[in-house]
Amino acid sequence: MKAKVHVTLKPGVLDPQGKAVAHALDALGFDDVKDVRQGKYLEIDIDDTDSSAAEDRVQDMCRKLLANTVIENYRVEIDASGET
Amino acid sequence: MKAKVHVTLKPGVLDPQGKAVAHALDALGFDDVKDVRQGKYLEIDIDDTDSSAAEDRVQDMCRKLLANTVIENYRVEIDASGET
Repeated sequence: MKAKVHVTLKPGVLDPQGKAVAHALDALGFDDVKDVRQGKYLEIDIDDTDSSAAEDRVQDMCRKLLANTVIENYRVEIDASGET
Repeated sequence: MKAKVHVTLKPGVLDPQGKAVAHALDALGFDDVKDVRQGKYLEIDIDDTDSSAAEDRVQDMCRKLLANTVIENYRVEIDASGET
């Protein structure tokens, strides 16, 4: 089963990586870009066959390793079909 | 208008960052993790008011800066509501 995880900075937390991308886009002529926020995207392939058990497990992974919950939000989606 | 961009490594391209995450999860006791692939997720706030023009523009940004199209795929979604 595939789990898709988005980890994003909480609103208000400074995002220097996003700012760098925004400046680089501006330098390339994309001057209509107002703001860029960069996050992480993970696709996790797990053995669980039950999607609600898998979701609980991935939520647990987020809290323990994947996200810094002080400054980051995370979102878990389970894709039971196994497609990416 | 908000554009959401996913940049992921093409299948078959080695992903050392994903492997490191998979090993760290295994070390934390998540031994049901078979594979992890890590990508980037960007939220871009642009001035365009027309969603198809905005999508073209963001596709162009992906080709020119955000994705290395030799080894990475990208996917653009336009969210006209401006919600994250």
